[in-house]
Amino acid sequence: MATNKSVDNGVNVQALTDARDALSKAPAGAQFKWRAACQWINGTHSRSTVEGFYGLGGEQSHKTEFTFDADHPELFASEDHGATPVEIVLSGLASCLTAGIASVAQLRGIQLRSVTAKLEGDMDILGILGADPDVRNGFNNIKVVFDIDADAKPDDIKALVAQSQKRSAVYDIIANPTNITVEVA
Amino acid sequence: MATNKSVDNGVNVQALTDARDALSKAPAGAQFKWRAACQWINGTHSRSTVEGFYGLGGEQSHKTEFTFDADHPELFASEDHGATPVEIVLSGLASCLTAGIASVAQLRGIQLRSVTAKLEGDMDILGILGADPDVRNGFNNIKVVFDIDADAKPDDIKALVAQSQKRSAVYDIIANPTNITVEVA
Repeated sequence: MATNKSVDNGVNVQALTDARDALSKAPAGAQFKWRAACQWINGTHSRSTVEGFYGLGGEQSHKTEFTFDADHPELFASEDHGATPVEIVLSGLASCLTAGIASVAQLRGIQLRSVTAKLEGDMDILGILGADPDVRNGFNNIKVVFDIDADAKPDDIKALVAQSQKRSAVYDIIANPTNITVEVA
Repeated sequence: MATNKSVDNGVNVQALTDARDALSKAPAGAQFKWRAACQWINGTHSRSTVEGFYGLGGEQSHKTEFTFDADHPELFASEDHGATPVEIVLSGLASCLTAGIASVAQLRGIQLRSVTAKLEGDMDILGILGADPDVRNGFNNIKVVFDIDADAKPDDIKALVAQSQKRSAVYDIIANPTNITVEVA
């Protein structure tokens, strides 16, 4: 696969294509388990931590533990110690699409100068309040708008974003049904 | 609606039931827009910020801006400056269910002592690597296990978790299809 080495978006595309080739031949290594733990603090405030995961046939770990405080805002009579869970999900979507754009740009030899995204999710909170059974709890719609400054034509930038969307884990998780089981230990 | 004031999980249930009653009569105020912005840093590293949102008929703001760094781990030849986007999504799911448990427990007069959750999402990364068109990009399955110490019978704790799941915004966003439009400005 051709890669353009004259651009540098900070993505090691060679390593990714090597991984694709290696894991295609040894697909057991491609089975990953991503994890988070969460501890209730008080009220609607909780703290999630991310550190270990499973992949390439064994237990792996991030360099450090990452923590995410979540809460509800003051207008819901909460203390606003963190973003709301739905805003955290939007952040996950934003970062997944953005990482994809950098990776695909590297592969296609497009030098990025800046990439920003604005995301907005519409929600009728009569759903989560249990006030109207016909209203869903989650977002009715999510809109993502990218603003990209890159050494490429507008159509190539659009194609870059489309390819990132096509390969995005979080886009797929949100756009399509994902089975979730919730149990009590 | 009966609430048990002898327990204190830090949730103001009266305010939530008042909000439900008020918004049921004035549903325009229940239309919320939750937002995140994202800036590409380098490689797969990006930073999302959450601050303003729209609701109750006007622009609102968190007390402070919250930021979320995301990246890929070193085994993907990245620099591991943050959790992966999919781990951020798991954190959003964890915190949504946990806030719900605290709220429903308050409403039902159940005193919580501790609530922890462990989440695991299974992913075959041949999907995101583009190595196998039959493999989805996202999670094949998410498992959430709660460990709850509360002043309640096991069946009541299970019912508490089930009710939180039923009203969870993030559970719905992930479990059910959500429309996402991605555009270039």
